[in-house]
Parts: sequence; C-alpha cells; structure tokens
Amino acid sequence: MKATSIAQLLQQEPSLVEITARGWVRAFRSNRFIALNDGSTLHNIQCVVDFENFEEETLKNITVGAAIEVKGTLVESQGKGQRVEIQVSEVEVLGTADPEDVKLTILSPKRHSLEKLREQAHLRVRTNTFGAIMRVRSKLSFAIHEYFQKNGFYYMHTPIITGSDAEGAGEMFKVTNLDLKKTPLNEDGAINYKEDFFEKETNLTVSGQLEAETYAMGLGKVYTFGPTFRAENSNTSRHLAEFWMIEPEVAFNDLADNMDLAEDFIKYVVNYALENCADDLEFLENRLLQEEKSKPQAERSEMALRDKLKFVLENNFKRVSYTEAIEILKNSKPNKKKKFKYLIEEWGADLQSEHERFLVEKHFKSPVILFDYPAKIKAFYMRLNDDGKTVRAMDVLFPGIGEIVGGSQREERYDVLKEKMETMGIPEEELYWYLDLRKFGTCVHSGFGLGFERLVLFVTGMGNIRDVIPYPRTPGNASF
Amino acid sequence: MKATSIAQLLQQEPSLVEITARGWVRAFRSNRFIALNDGSTLHNIQCVVDFENFEEETLKNITVGAAIEVKGTLVESQGKGQRVEIQVSEVEVLGTADPEDVKLTILSPKRHSLEKLREQAHLRVRTNTFGAIMRVRSKLSFAIHEYFQKNGFYYMHTPIITGSDAEGAGEMFKVTNLDLKKTPLNEDGAINYKEDFFEKETNLTVSGQLEAETYAMGLGKVYTFGPTFRAENSNTSRHLAEFWMIEPEVAFNDLADNMDLAEDFIKYVVNYALENCADDLEFLENRLLQEEKSKPQAERSEMALRDKLKFVLENNFKRVSYTEAIEILKNSKPNKKKKFKYLIEEWGADLQSEHERFLVEKHFKSPVILFDYPAKIKAFYMRLNDDGKTVRAMDVLFPGIGEIVGGSQREERYDVLKEKMETMGIPEEELYWYLDLRKFGTCVHSGFGLGFERLVLFVTGMGNIRDVIPYPRTPGNASF
Repeated sequence: MKATSIAQLLQQEPSLVEITARGWVRAFRSNRFIALNDGSTLHNIQCVVDFENFEEETLKNITVGAAIEVKGTLVESQGKGQRVEIQVSEVEVLGTADPEDVKLTILSPKRHSLEKLREQAHLRVRTNTFGAIMRVRSKLSFAIHEYFQKNGFYYMHTPIITGSDAEGAGEMFKVTNLDLKKTPLNEDGAINYKEDFFEKETNLTVSGQLEAETYAMGLGKVYTFGPTFRAENSNTSRHLAEFWMIEPEVAFNDLADNMDLAEDFIKYVVNYALENCADDLEFLENRLLQEEKSKPQAERSEMALRDKLKFVLENNFKRVSYTEAIEILKNSKPNKKKKFKYLIEEWGADLQSEHERFLVEKHFKSPVILFDYPAKIKAFYMRLNDDGKTVRAMDVLFPGIGEIVGGSQREERYDVLKEKMETMGIPEEELYWYLDLRKFGTCVHSGFGLGFERLVLFVTGMGNIRDVIPYPRTPGNASF
Repeated sequence: MKATSIAQLLQQEPSLVEITARGWVRAFRSNRFIALNDGSTLHNIQCVVDFENFEEETLKNITVGAAIEVKGTLVESQGKGQRVEIQVSEVEVLGTADPEDVKLTILSPKRHSLEKLREQAHLRVRTNTFGAIMRVRSKLSFAIHEYFQKNGFYYMHTPIITGSDAEGAGEMFKVTNLDLKKTPLNEDGAINYKEDFFEKETNLTVSGQLEAETYAMGLGKVYTFGPTFRAENSNTSRHLAEFWMIEPEVAFNDLADNMDLAEDFIKYVVNYALENCADDLEFLENRLLQEEKSKPQAERSEMALRDKLKFVLENNFKRVSYTEAIEILKNSKPNKKKKFKYLIEEWGADLQSEHERFLVEKHFKSPVILFDYPAKIKAFYMRLNDDGKTVRAMDVLFPGIGEIVGGSQREERYDVLKEKMETMGIPEEELYWYLDLRKFGTCVHSGFGLGFERLVLFVTGMGNIRDVIPYPRTPGNASF
C-alpha cells in the first residue's frame, strides 16, 4: 500500500480507512506512544500501539532513529498538541538504530551544539532545527524561480568553469586536469596550459554577471541561480568558499529600476516563506529566542524572527546615496567617540561592515539601499555618473547580515568601458565579447547579485552561514 | 514611461493609449516597417514609421541589431502575419549597430551554420533559433522545480567541490589553490595537499547522489538540480564536460516506484513545454523540417517535433528487463547480419548506444525503461537482487537521445554495501557517512539522474548538445 506523508495525514480528518505511514522514530514512550517523523513537515505524528498486541522483539527495536512502517487508522487524538493520531494495527521495523551507536551521534535525544551538528552534517538534517532550515531553504529557492518566471525573466545557466578571470583575480580556484606532480612547463618556465583539458587556464566562476549580460541583450530579462566560488581565506560566520548566487540582469533597466526590482524581489520571497513555512519559521523563532536567552540583553534581537520578516515587507527600503551616508557616518556618535575600528574621515572611504550595520541597525532602523559609490572602490563595468567620480552602484544592506545584494547599472558606452578596461589592466582580447555588447545595439541595463545563503540566514535567524547550506566548504573543510 | 514587453503588446487589443516598446531591430524595410524584438517572445512586433515625420539621421541609424525605443499606439495591423502593430509617433535610437561591423557577425540577416553560431556564442541568443532554445530551456527548468515542489520534494544543493571521488575515479577535474609551478611535495614525493585550500585533495562533483541520499533519509523526498562535471575526452555531439543534472532521491521508494516517478516526471515537464512554449516549439519544429530536407529520407525523423513530444505523453514507457533485452537483441536482424559494431553474444554484455537505439527506435518504437542489469557493469551502491547477479538499476532510453535517465534502488543493507565497497576498493574511511545511513534507520530508497541538456535536446529537436547550453565546455573549449 502507498504510504501517506505525515504532512498530509496531519491535515486529514479521523476516518476508518486504513492508512500507511513510514518514517523515523523520534521518541517512543511508555511502550505505547511513537513520535514518527518523515521529513515532510516539522511535526511528528503520534502513533499509538497497544503493546499487548505486538511481539516484544518488534517493540524492542522501536528506538530513536529506527525506520518503521505503521498501518492503522487515523483517530482523534486524546493527548494535546495534535488533532489526530494513528491507532496502530501493524508495525514493521524497516531499519533498526542500535541505541548504543545512536548515543555516539547527534541523533541521541539531547541538546547538541551547532558545532557538533556540523561535524555530523550527514545526520543533522534529521534534527528539528536542520529539517526546518532546509525546508525553508528549498521553499525560498522555489520562490526565487517563481518570482522571476512570473515576471517574464528567463533562467539561464552561466558557465561554472571559466576561462576569464576578469573579476576575481587572485581569489579564484584553479580547475585542471594536469598531473600536479609534473606540471608541463613551456621553455620560458610558464605552465603549458595547452596540455590541459581546455587548452587554457581555467578557474571556477566568481559571478555569472558578464555572461548574463550577453543574454539580457537577447532575451531582455534573465536571471541566474547557480554556485559561485571564492578562494578567500576568510574563516568567518559570513563567508563560504562555495555558495549560491542569484543574478538578474535586465535590458533597459536603469539604477532606479534596479533598486525597485531588488526590493520587490526580496519582499516577494520573504513573503513566500512567511506564507509557506509557517511551522518551520515558528520553530526557528523559538529556537532563536532560546539561544538569545544566554546573551546579554544588548545583544539580543529587538524583534522576534517573524516580526523582523514582516518589518521588511511593510517598510520601504531607505535609499541613501553614498555621499549622504558618509555625512551621516562622519557626524555619528561612534565616529566622534572613535568607537569605529575604521574612522570615517573623508569622502571616498570604503565602508566596512561596522558602518553598514550602524546605518541599518542604529540610524535608519530599516533595510537600506546605498547607491552612487565612488568609482575608485567599485568594479570596472559600473556606469560612470556625469560627475566623473561616482558610479551607479547599489548595495542593499540588511540588519544583522550587512550586504545582501550588490548591483549596478552597467557601463553601456563602448568608449568609456574600453578606456576603463585599459586603465584597470583588463585585457581586451579576453573580454572582446563583453565589449561587443556595446558595439551592437547597446542600451542601458542593470542587474545585481544576491547571495542566497545570506538570504537564508536572514529568513531562518541562524547566526552562522555554515548552518544554512547542507555541506559547507570553508578553508580546510571539504568533508562529505 | 515604462515600456511594455512585446509578448504583452501582441496580446493586447488596439487602443489609443500611448505605449512604449524597446528592443532590437531585426529588419527595417521600405524605410517604413521595423520588425522589433525584445526577447520576451519569438515574434517581432511591426512598428510602422511615417518616414516624412522623422529626421533622416534617425532613420539612417535604424539598422539590423540597433537598440531602439518607440512610442506610439497599438493599431490593427494592415499586413498579414500579425493582429496588431505599433503606429509610431516617436522613435529613439538607443544603441547603433554599424552595418559594416554587423556584416562580420552572425547578426547579419542571412543563414549561418550552427558551427558559426557557436563561435559567436555571445551573440547567438539574438537569433530566432537560439532565442527559442533558451526560452524552452528556461521553461523546462521551471517545470522541473514546479513538479517536485508540487509533489512534496525538497530542493537541496549538493556540494560542487567534493573531497570524495568514489564515483568518478579518473574522470574528475581537480580543484586547487596550489601554485602549479612549484607544487608542494611530501618527503615521499606525493603532493602535500595539507597546503591546499581545503587541506585535502578536491575535485569537481560528478553527481550529488550520495549526498542527496543523506538528505532523503531526513526530509523523505529531495531533489538536486545543479552542475556536474566529467573530464572525459569525448568530443561528441552528446557529451559536455560541464552539464546540469537533476537527481531526485526518495526514501521508501523501490525500483518500481522509481520508474513510476521517472515516467511521471518526464511527462510533466514535456507537457509543460508543449503548453508554455507553443510558439517556440512550432518554430523549432519547422527549423528541424528544413534541416532534415537535406538529409536522405531514411535519416529523417518519422514524426514532427511536437508529435514526437505528444507521443511520449500518450504512451507508457515500455519496461523491459535487461535479460529480456539481451534476448531481443541476440535474435535481432542487425545482430544476426552482423550489422552491430558490438555483437551481442551473451548475457552480461554492456549495451552500447546502437543497441539502445535499436530497442527504442526499431523494436519497441517507444521510450523504454531497461531494468535489472548485471551487477558487474553497474555502480557499487545499487541494490543487489536475490539472484545474486543482477542489481535494481534502471535506464530510461529515448529515441534519438539514448539514455536520458539512469537510476537505481540503492543497496540499503549495511553488510552487503560494506562488502561491496571492500570488493571494489572503495575506502570506508572516505564514505563512512554513506555507510552510516545503513546503520541508523536504513530503509529501501531509490533515485535517478536526468541529464538536463539531453532533455533539452529532445524537446527542442536540436542535434548537438553544444547548442542547448549557453556556453558549452568541451575538450579544448572554455571560451567566454
């Protein structure tokens, strides 16, 4: 008989029709009440067994972590906390879980640290916390696709292995098929990449933007959603060496359109999570409350998780130029009292995380979009403003997260772009195709990148980016 | 004023309200009729300009490939082929396209070979053929997500950089941060990976299956949709070094459930394309008809493209055991007349593409699911049947494509799996986590992998896999 998912069973009315459920035992108390979970939902279904009717051997094997199948009928629950439960007529243990072995793992029913869970990342998804995070992650992914598809965007897969390193000089992973023990060299001592698989030097992509631009010039509105990589030695709770990024790119959009798109998009996906992950978000909200109880009052969140998400929906993102932001920061208390690690002294300074968080969390108390940054601290492809010193860049800053989106209007003028590439030492022969876009029917266009894991961090209220991706890759760690 | 997409304009009724459209000029004839395309749809909208009202300089710049903005009203079309057209009141050239430069590219309005288009992959999406292919690709991607999400699956991102090479020995790309000119060596002459970014040897993934299994054991039903890699030196029209794969994995599913899932899934996405890409598929069908006119009768498709897609929807996939298939092949005409390159002489032979195509295209004339393959020719993780010599593997074979899906029920028994890993020389310390799944609540489970580009090939009727992905990666080629 086909099994019914626990998510579905919990929605059904009591009935005499026999049903089958399969899942993993989360608890078995009084030799009578099994809490069964199959991952379809946070909630367990209670299965009531009349122990006198079952073999002792079977009952003995119903232990935490075991996979079982139960048949029975759905009856009104006598206990509290659930509407229905299964009155079990048959139970079969499909796969045991030796309690002595379970004791050594995070499956054992007690509190485990997030560090410990990370070490057993292949099992952590069986916990309530990680089940919830990963269901939310999945729903957010779908919301992203749904948003763009509903709005006339085409999804494109930009290459992962790339022959150009225009953007990521020094921070890229090399991809090679060469024998590393005896790398072939040319007469001049350089590596002979002609012998490599692609017959040239290749790396893992840091962004699909440039290729996305080529498609926006044909399909109008496109987006990417794929993995990107940074070989940056940052061992922080905000950085991963491998992470997923969403990059929309839209022909004819200027910077204001780009900001509108980013705001509308983020609100759509956050709202989608609130509507489609109610149980999981409630659980994560309580988890966060518990976690914060051990922190000093000043470090606790001012809002509960779902209130914070609703706050984002209900408020306009504050749009502030870089120049205004510098003024605010220069005159701010932490700057005057020298509380910032990097003091803001003059226009042109690169903003640090501490400054962004001050603007978002203390000054504006809302998500902020900073725009029109100094050209000097931004990438070559950003549209130069008429003032000659700022570019049409924008960053969306979120409370607790910092930069969640970085984007810009792109330089659409052939001569200006070419000159900038020369100045910045970007070889034209490598990006001739990118310049071509400015030669054949160029137009104003814009786009941005959203780091998916940062969005998941924000929505789940987790504190460490390693806890919102199944198998995190960080310096010194590529386990599983 | 906000522009309206051409897809939307073509759906609207004539009206006196002023509208704005932006796009690229596909043709300009008689100094009067502009065919404008913005990528939102295959179709151009006709823009009628009264040349006496516009500056000569402007008209001169309305050339093929130029980006323009027109304002005007939507009127009933006098010409045939379209219901409405734009009566233009204003036109602005946003970006020119010098006809002398255009002549040197595939943007010039004449027939270009697919090879030529591949060389200018950054521009080919502006042609009708590639616009259509890439819109279909995008819709198919979304259909895949929609299918799984509707059916209670959770999307998971399996790692791209992997420390385990259990599956792909020899065919994997290395990922490294080491200086290739002076690779650090240990005293024994081996590479000192401790100095590399991840402090171990790492590669690009060939499959997310093993990690997906870990999540199926917690969330029940999961799927991946991500890039996978093969450093295989195959320069064929069916192979890419970088391609996208979809891998569902379901707890409690046996091989029959797995076949049901594969068939239901493929039918859903093919149907989605038929319903949502009608124009593009009609275009691609005609393209294929044209292309095939130059082929001898015997090599032409028996069915038009959309008929072939409908045929897949309307027919059950024929399920045939490997053993039956061998009998059929042994007794087949091409085998008896020695027309096969590899003659089928006995049970145990690995099937080649020629055999698969014979079964699908000549014998059954329908998609075929082959199952219960000899254990010797299949991977270590496949469930051993009670006969001791076959495993619960399945391959879905499609006309013209060959294998489009490969899957299996997984070996869920700890002892059997452990022994098989030993026999096959797979180190336990590398896959301890995979064995753990059989230690803690193991259960019957199954999954499969679908090569996304092969699906796109099938649905678009294209012949070369390099033409269904934006920027193909193949031996010697990682351009753009």
